[in-house]
Amino acid sequence: MSEGTTTRNFTLTVRYAETDAQGVVHHANYLTWFDEGRSEFLSQQGLHYSDMERDGFFVIVARATVDYRAPSFYEDRITIATTLVKGRGRMLEFIYQATNQNGILVAEGRTRHLVLDRKRRLVSMPDRFIQLLLE
Amino acid sequence: MSEGTTTRNFTLTVRYAETDAQGVVHHANYLTWFDEGRSEFLSQQGLHYSDMERDGFFVIVARATVDYRAPSFYEDRITIATTLVKGRGRMLEFIYQATNQNGILVAEGRTRHLVLDRKRRLVSMPDRFIQLLLE
Amino acid sequence: MSEGTTTRNFTLTVRYAETDAQGVVHHANYLTWFDEGRSEFLSQQGLHYSDMERDGFFVIVARATVDYRAPSFYEDRITIATTLVKGRGRMLEFIYQATNQNGILVAEGRTRHLVLDRKRRLVSMPDRFIQLLLE
Amino acid sequence: MSEGTTTRNFTLTVRYAETDAQGVVHHANYLTWFDEGRSEFLSQQGLHYSDMERDGFFVIVARATVDYRAPSFYEDRITIATTLVKGRGRMLEFIYQATNQNGILVAEGRTRHLVLDRKRRLVSMPDRFIQLLLE
Repeated sequence: MSEGTTTRNFTLTVRYAETDAQGVVHHANYLTWFDEGRSEFLSQQGLHYSDMERDGFFVIVARATVDYRAPSFYEDRITIATTLVKGRGRMLEFIYQATNQNGILVAEGRTRHLVLDRKRRLVSMPDRFIQLLLE
Repeated sequence: MSEGTTTRNFTLTVRYAETDAQGVVHHANYLTWFDEGRSEFLSQQGLHYSDMERDGFFVIVARATVDYRAPSFYEDRITIATTLVKGRGRMLEFIYQATNQNGILVAEGRTRHLVLDRKRRLVSMPDRFIQLLLE
Repeated sequence: MSEGTTTRNFTLTVRYAETDAQGVVHHANYLTWFDEGRSEFLSQQGLHYSDMERDGFFVIVARATVDYRAPSFYEDRITIATTLVKGRGRMLEFIYQATNQNGILVAEGRTRHLVLDRKRRLVSMPDRFIQLLLE
Repeated sequence: MSEGTTTRNFTLTVRYAETDAQGVVHHANYLTWFDEGRSEFLSQQGLHYSDMERDGFFVIVARATVDYRAPSFYEDRITIATTLVKGRGRMLEFIYQATNQNGILVAEGRTRHLVLDRKRRLVSMPDRFIQLLLE
């Protein structure tokens, strides 16, 4: 499995609960948005993550980085563009770009993932899942 | 099992992430604080909720009510007083009072709970748990 | 202003971050969903809540109740139906029904609201906002 | 202002709401914990962040990285060790180590911060704040 080039988009509306006393989105929420972006990426590839878990494969986060470029505000429409950039052996890596309704890049991120079985042992993803990811 | 009279306290410091763009704590966080209050109540009674789950008993929330009395702010020290008020058959009920460092009541709440087994069927709590709750 | 009869719907997809160790959505998230439902209700009526705050009117939550009917799971599609049920003087009241993709009612709720000015004093909503709410 | 060597600790108990359907703490919560660690660092240095905001200085997050080493579970007691590692001109940088009750390192992180004024313009922190940070 080599570097992916597929990017999948989805758009969310900023919730009031996601803002903080500075009047902008609290920085921890971007990780949750990227998580949702990854989930959407998988399901748009025909691979629902809940199916993976039902089959006994659990994707965990090993590393996450976020670069905050501009603030986001309540009611902003944020588009998360998710790209699978690495899928070698037991490791997956995604990058994310979050852009608001005015086309301004508000944050970029990268997450690295490992796959565990039901006993939390490191395993490789089965071929049927990798095929779907790469399509 | 009759009405309990034991009240257990614990104190938390308001996190920046819990505030919203109004500059006060977002109202959904109080349910999380009451959840933590209940968890502390149980563990102070010698009944760790994680032990209950390990034994196959899952307490779920059937109903929750919060009355918001005054705003809470970042860095406030909030004391949650949790009281078990009902424990009849398969139902538990707790009330909560949240008070800040100046003694001002900021919120009151009530939650009603049911107990499920591993297959999410309604069950009664075992006597050994009820004994601990009532002590 | 009398009882409203308008109901507004919006649909969300359950985030992984919203689940808890019981494998279902943690109960505090429903308040956030109802908050988003209310926000969508207002904007579908042509009244963006961010505009209200810009004009110096802050809607706060005075009371919230949730009845939990069935669990929600990761990737569920939840439709929140929001209805304005009371709007007398300085008080607003909304009810909510949350239904999943199989038509199962998962939760119902009710929230009561007051309106504050920039100095956090109780005020009445201006007529121009009430007109939009009632249309 | 040179590299700081002071480390400040605080300990939290994992909330049920912080777990996810994998039965472990959802990865986004670590950023909130580090945020709370930074808040505790400042207040233990005698510099309440709420005072900074009252004086018109807003610390924002420009970059955040988390390395996840081991899972955390409900009721775990997590100690966050926060160290100020850089404070040159307009930039602050902190590192964090999160360790559980068994002494296992569960996560490490790093955050980079900028300081804004009320109009969200980049400024330097006043000397009186820097003195307190370095003491």
